[in-house]
Amino acid sequence: MYAITIPEPGGPEALQWAEVPDPVPGEGEVLIDVAASAVNRADLLQRQGFYDPPPGSSPYPGLECSGRIAALGPGVAGWSVGDEVCALLAGGGYAERVAVPAGQVLPVPDGVDLVTAAALPEVTSTVWSNVFMVAHLRPGETLLAHGGASGIGTMAIQLAKAVGAKVAVTAGGKEKLAYCGELGADVLIDYREQDFVEEVRAATDGAGADVILDIMGAKYLDRNVRALAVNGRLAIIGMQGGVKAELNIAALLGKRGAITATSLRGRPVAEKTAIVAAVREHVWPLIGAGQVRPVVDRTLPMRDAAAAHRVLEESGHIGKVLLVREEQGAV
Amino acid sequence: MYAITIPEPGGPEALQWAEVPDPVPGEGEVLIDVAASAVNRADLLQRQGFYDPPPGSSPYPGLECSGRIAALGPGVAGWSVGDEVCALLAGGGYAERVAVPAGQVLPVPDGVDLVTAAALPEVTSTVWSNVFMVAHLRPGETLLAHGGASGIGTMAIQLAKAVGAKVAVTAGGKEKLAYCGELGADVLIDYREQDFVEEVRAATDGAGADVILDIMGAKYLDRNVRALAVNGRLAIIGMQGGVKAELNIAALLGKRGAITATSLRGRPVAEKTAIVAAVREHVWPLIGAGQVRPVVDRTLPMRDAAAAHRVLEESGHIGKVLLVREEQGAV
Repeated sequence: MYAITIPEPGGPEALQWAEVPDPVPGEGEVLIDVAASAVNRADLLQRQGFYDPPPGSSPYPGLECSGRIAALGPGVAGWSVGDEVCALLAGGGYAERVAVPAGQVLPVPDGVDLVTAAALPEVTSTVWSNVFMVAHLRPGETLLAHGGASGIGTMAIQLAKAVGAKVAVTAGGKEKLAYCGELGADVLIDYREQDFVEEVRAATDGAGADVILDIMGAKYLDRNVRALAVNGRLAIIGMQGGVKAELNIAALLGKRGAITATSLRGRPVAEKTAIVAAVREHVWPLIGAGQVRPVVDRTLPMRDAAAAHRVLEESGHIGKVLLVREEQGAV
Repeated sequence: MYAITIPEPGGPEALQWAEVPDPVPGEGEVLIDVAASAVNRADLLQRQGFYDPPPGSSPYPGLECSGRIAALGPGVAGWSVGDEVCALLAGGGYAERVAVPAGQVLPVPDGVDLVTAAALPEVTSTVWSNVFMVAHLRPGETLLAHGGASGIGTMAIQLAKAVGAKVAVTAGGKEKLAYCGELGADVLIDYREQDFVEEVRAATDGAGADVILDIMGAKYLDRNVRALAVNGRLAIIGMQGGVKAELNIAALLGKRGAITATSLRGRPVAEKTAIVAAVREHVWPLIGAGQVRPVVDRTLPMRDAAAAHRVLEESGHIGKVLLVREEQGAV
């Protein structure tokens, strides 16, 4: 088969469409004939040589895909060859075929086409596991989502609104913020011009955010703690603003606050399986009902993954950037 | 009545036994005729002028007491005048009488005398709320408790062992560590001579601690994160080692770790009531069965609170230091 390989870490041009050995599904795995994959920030880090795949996983980038089941490994129940699915991967989505533990596979939801389904596994799993399973966002509480126009952000807005929470977002520029507003965000904060601590307080009668979903890490740590409400939970899922920062423990204690930091990729299969099961139970019905939808910025041919990486690096996109196999006819 | 007052913040000598107005139980409160109170680190800070009582609470120090119910305010059910009780207070325990919301009152447990019961409310509420309600320590997991010989530490060891966890403690010197061992601690770490990160790893096949109960704050932040296991939870309840320190978010994310920081005193009555109810449900039966017991270093007359504060400042004690009203005959 063909896959996007990284012979030498570097810029987008490091991504090479090359012939590689076919994956073979192991015990409890299914083999997916990939229709589309999607670009995540972690892929950019992997391309640069900063984020090696976990031991035993595919060396090719791609943390999610959609496609049809082409074969079942030993001991797989509940799936059949030909099923249209999408899946959360530890890697290998930028390829014609990928093997994945059956517990990380989801059916294509009602009302979503096969290619677009590739936009769903990472954002739904990340948002559901962090905002709901870890931070327990409740109806009537306020979520602050940084990067509201990103793939994660657009899903966080919709899921938080679906459970009856109030949503504040940060994003850069009027166009992105307007889109967040269309998705349901109540408080639109332009980080280029506004102080999110002040804006969140103003929008919550001084209380602050009950849950913050953060992708900035160090750069926002102090401000995030200040923006938390009493009993607030800061869920860090990215470190685009650096990895080390001073924590004011007294400020956190004054809020009786919690800080969590997680990633999906390094989790064992059992934890991913539990998250994917929760997503199927709680998120899939909302998508099937049209209450929550995948947000796709654009689709590009998989062999042009370099162009897709450039889109993410320029941060001009809204929602997900998909990589489509050309024979899917979607490009 | 008489109470320990703080006319001017300062050293232990700032504590003055003086006549003050009697408290009056409000709606939903009971009035307790105090038998004993206990000294907490927060009292030392309050004496120094660094920790004002929450609005509306007693200006006198003392976050817990035991005694007999002397009167019921309007709307109190479930308690009678004369009941022997202990209680979690927002202040005012260093006094002959104190008014407290009925939800913060507990019966004196079976097998514990009235004076000794004053050693229980703060440590049981703090340990249960942090180690179990927030950090969810589970059987088979490892707890690292800093300050293992303190009031909090001695209760943390016993409760963690009672639920089937492994317990590591830090303390200063052989005598304190030996006592922790007698209470059931499995791993004894002398912080003066040993690196707790290394010792905890060695004792857990390299895995680290699933839950850390920390009283040091800034000074231990980085090492605590390093000592955490994957999915580990760091519960900070004190800042004896300072309030600000650099947090390595990447290290926390690599563990998928959580940091919480809480205090009991500032919580609203409803939260304290929920914690006290959980303590009564889960901890009281263990005390009644003799599986968990209060650890009292010494008792001193309440009017000599200054001497008791000096004991805590010298950190030579093991367990709780109690303040007893002289007419209780315990001194």
